[in-house]
Amino acid sequence: MLYLVGLGLADETDITVKGLEIVRKAERVYLEAYTSILLVDKDKLEAFYGRDVSMADREAVESFSDGILAGADKVDVAFLVVGDPFCATTHTDLVLRARTLNIPTKTIPNASILSAIGATGLQLYNFGQTVSMVFFTDTWKPSSFYDRIAENRRIGLHTLVLLDIKVKEQSLENLARGRRVFEPPRYMTVAQCARQMLEIESSRREGVYGQDSLAVGVARIGAGDQKLVAGTLTQLCEADLGPPLQSLVLLGRRTHDLEREFMAEFAVDLQVFNEVWARDYEGKQ
Amino acid sequence: MLYLVGLGLADETDITVKGLEIVRKAERVYLEAYTSILLVDKDKLEAFYGRDVSMADREAVESFSDGILAGADKVDVAFLVVGDPFCATTHTDLVLRARTLNIPTKTIPNASILSAIGATGLQLYNFGQTVSMVFFTDTWKPSSFYDRIAENRRIGLHTLVLLDIKVKEQSLENLARGRRVFEPPRYMTVAQCARQMLEIESSRREGVYGQDSLAVGVARIGAGDQKLVAGTLTQLCEADLGPPLQSLVLLGRRTHDLEREFMAEFAVDLQVFNEVWARDYEGKQ
Repeated sequence: MLYLVGLGLADETDITVKGLEIVRKAERVYLEAYTSILLVDKDKLEAFYGRDVSMADREAVESFSDGILAGADKVDVAFLVVGDPFCATTHTDLVLRARTLNIPTKTIPNASILSAIGATGLQLYNFGQTVSMVFFTDTWKPSSFYDRIAENRRIGLHTLVLLDIKVKEQSLENLARGRRVFEPPRYMTVAQCARQMLEIESSRREGVYGQDSLAVGVARIGAGDQKLVAGTLTQLCEADLGPPLQSLVLLGRRTHDLEREFMAEFAVDLQVFNEVWARDYEGKQ
Repeated sequence: MLYLVGLGLADETDITVKGLEIVRKAERVYLEAYTSILLVDKDKLEAFYGRDVSMADREAVESFSDGILAGADKVDVAFLVVGDPFCATTHTDLVLRARTLNIPTKTIPNASILSAIGATGLQLYNFGQTVSMVFFTDTWKPSSFYDRIAENRRIGLHTLVLLDIKVKEQSLENLARGRRVFEPPRYMTVAQCARQMLEIESSRREGVYGQDSLAVGVARIGAGDQKLVAGTLTQLCEADLGPPLQSLVLLGRRTHDLEREFMAEFAVDLQVFNEVWARDYEGKQ
């Protein structure tokens, strides 16, 4: 059996009791290490599980999945995924590959940012489609997120923006020379995301959102030191939420007063927050 | 401290290791028992936790929250919620009430249907807002879900439909006479949901979806006997997915071939599924 085991969001104790039993009994244990990260090191996981854990990077999962699946028709293999196993396409691929090899699969769900984002106090019913924000370069500033946010905003919905992480990336030079030398990992911050959002708005000028649009930044949701900051996009350009992982929610106009009340606690500047809320959000449908 | 502890979706072992430690140490333990249910009895939870668990119904949480919060500035109180704690508004209320009493709160996230629905193979990025479907009566057939689905469908997105549960409901007669006698619990099935959806389409006739629109029904996600069925709404009107809890996803036209490939395994009738897919979904944006 191939088990896809969700690890939750913060540390080694966020695995479920059911998931932990599977990890402890499995013949081999892999950790998917490129779509998200836990906030603790692999050593800590291994000590807690009492098991060796093999790191599976994108290459391993996408090109060598048969190695991961080898023998899984007879023995149990656990494939650990940060958050919930079905939040990334790659894992769907792995399950499909297992099917063609007649290997049964079972998924152990866990917390995902898609529901844990409720910690902002924003109602999950009021969210539209989720978008991703990648690191811009001087020559590559993809703005498809802007069209998706436009669709959400037109019908008044909040948008969860998931922020890029770069692990095990090679520089163009090292890639060209075939050197397996990797850059240090990079994790996008709420401030970078807010700046990139405003950059695209100033180039496309469709008024999908603006400097005064309200947003909430979150960092390390589910961890002891989780941090939330609510304010305008301009304010969030200067926000420092500390270490990764971070995400951002851009508010839609279809809000509930309970949302305001809950978020007020996280406001960078309560007066500004309340003024913008009253002017642009309150009572809008 | 008030801990809101997510229990996940299926049974007693879906709690996280972190959550279980909190439950075992807390002074008092409550189980929220009206927005969702686990698939196991309270006895089983109590045996597994080694703790007595008090059932908290809607009345207790909404009207007597101060009883739940009593002393939580000095001792630890655990409030258990099926799924993820922030998926229902009521829990936001409880946290706000705790804040006004200067009681610190901490949330332990867990799996929610919002991400576990990825077990259908549908990409979570392609979902719009989530809607709820309540039990219709002869005189009350609220159709606001139809407007929300219309918004999602217009931009090509999938819609997760959460199905009504009725626990501890009183008949009008018992309510009028003040008798605390409760009806047996009721849980909506995928078939009932599909029928109600088609009923509203035939009365409103806006062509938001039709008899041939593709949908996936799911039951007991995360449990050993989870069941998925994909087909047209007409086919799902006859689907039997067994015991609760059940949910339904209505597909949007913005699909990926990986979604078709994954769902094909659950098709009521693969030929019909593939024909409708090729005609109405494939390659649409």
